[in-house]
Amino acid sequence: MKFDAKKETEKIIEFIRNYYKENNLKGAILGISGGKDSGVVAGLMTMALGAENVIGVTMPCHSKADDKCDAKLISDYYGFKLINFDLTNVFDGFKNELKNIGTFDLDTLKNSDINLKPRLRMATVYYLAAMYSAIYGGTYLVAGTGNKCELFVGYFTKGGDQVCDIAPIADLTVEEVIAIGEYIKVPDKVLHKAPSDGLSGMSDEEKLGVTYKDIAKYMEDENGVPKETGDKIKKLHLNSLHKFNVPTYRK
Amino acid sequence: MKFDAKKETEKIIEFIRNYYKENNLKGAILGISGGKDSGVVAGLMTMALGAENVIGVTMPCHSKADDKCDAKLISDYYGFKLINFDLTNVFDGFKNELKNIGTFDLDTLKNSDINLKPRLRMATVYYLAAMYSAIYGGTYLVAGTGNKCELFVGYFTKGGDQVCDIAPIADLTVEEVIAIGEYIKVPDKVLHKAPSDGLSGMSDEEKLGVTYKDIAKYMEDENGVPKETGDKIKKLHLNSLHKFNVPTYRK
Repeated sequence: MKFDAKKETEKIIEFIRNYYKENNLKGAILGISGGKDSGVVAGLMTMALGAENVIGVTMPCHSKADDKCDAKLISDYYGFKLINFDLTNVFDGFKNELKNIGTFDLDTLKNSDINLKPRLRMATVYYLAAMYSAIYGGTYLVAGTGNKCELFVGYFTKGGDQVCDIAPIADLTVEEVIAIGEYIKVPDKVLHKAPSDGLSGMSDEEKLGVTYKDIAKYMEDENGVPKETGDKIKKLHLNSLHKFNVPTYRK
Repeated sequence: MKFDAKKETEKIIEFIRNYYKENNLKGAILGISGGKDSGVVAGLMTMALGAENVIGVTMPCHSKADDKCDAKLISDYYGFKLINFDLTNVFDGFKNELKNIGTFDLDTLKNSDINLKPRLRMATVYYLAAMYSAIYGGTYLVAGTGNKCELFVGYFTKGGDQVCDIAPIADLTVEEVIAIGEYIKVPDKVLHKAPSDGLSGMSDEEKLGVTYKDIAKYMEDENGVPKETGDKIKKLHLNSLHKFNVPTYRK
């Protein structure tokens, strides 16, 4: 069945509004990476709640200024407030403290460093959410930007971008996110950028070794992709399950 | 049925060992607050994996030296490595960065500040887990210290102490955790301290407005506690459900 971007957009907006109404909530805050997922979620939250109730946050951390410009394209288009919280000094302060434990080479710290950034971003967005909730006298939720393809293969940081209070696009494939982005007019430059974590210097698809298109096909029909590709996707999926369900001892 | 601390301890150790064996894992790392939950989990992980495969981390953050001493009591008794990662400067660096957004009074930042600490601790423990995994050439998991009573009423920080890779005591009430602590000889001073988050200056039970004993009773039988107490517990429970299941739009 063809994906109906207009209808889904309306349903998502209704979902957000209902949840806010039922729980007596006020606003939304989200990290704006300058990529399409945060662009689309920012657009949807603004359409649902009004620009005056949405706050976007750019959180550069030793990163290129480009992404900040793209974030501004999004906030200018939708009209919500954009604030900048530079995490470079916090990150460096953390690394500095590490020296008290020992000296470690770059390779040893590669995975640690890559995942520290989204975790600091999560801590920052939640910090600001509670702060603006106090300032404006109503609860601000952290809007999540994970899409169905990323979530299926576990392409996110546990305790980082995974953590959110509402997930508007978690059931949409990358192509569906783009279709909605086109419908709600997320700026072209943002919508058609190759998705990248901005951390590792590689695109998402290079890192994963599979395309989002193939992930979407596989989710629909395991035999819809070549066997080797399917095996790769299945392995990524199985290896990521612990990110959703913590193994727990039961009496 | 009486809780059999010896039998449950053996079953938990078996559960941990099986999970490590099945997934070809190496070690465990955990934050040691100096309270009974981290004391008991540290003891269980050590008994399951051997002291050489367990690392405890103290993460003071503008906090009293007492807790660090209690952490040392635990690591001395079980013989695992204890490292200290002081988060005071990282926390202050974060607060310093906030000045670029504005000046906010203490009251506005109260909730933000209280929850920032466990989120920084989570980021730190995960940083070190990946680092030691690289150093020792095998995966270190972050062991969670949440117990059943805390989890039931949502007494933890979303994206903070909630985040873990294995949960050995998540199905045990506070009394059962203490019974296991007595059996595995967690130092008395640690085991019988009034549980406190070390953040707010109040004990857990003062903050919650209900006792852990009553929470345990309520979980067994909703009518096992006075109605007013039950209503309070029920409300806490319902208000915390979003911490486990993020509201997600489904097509």
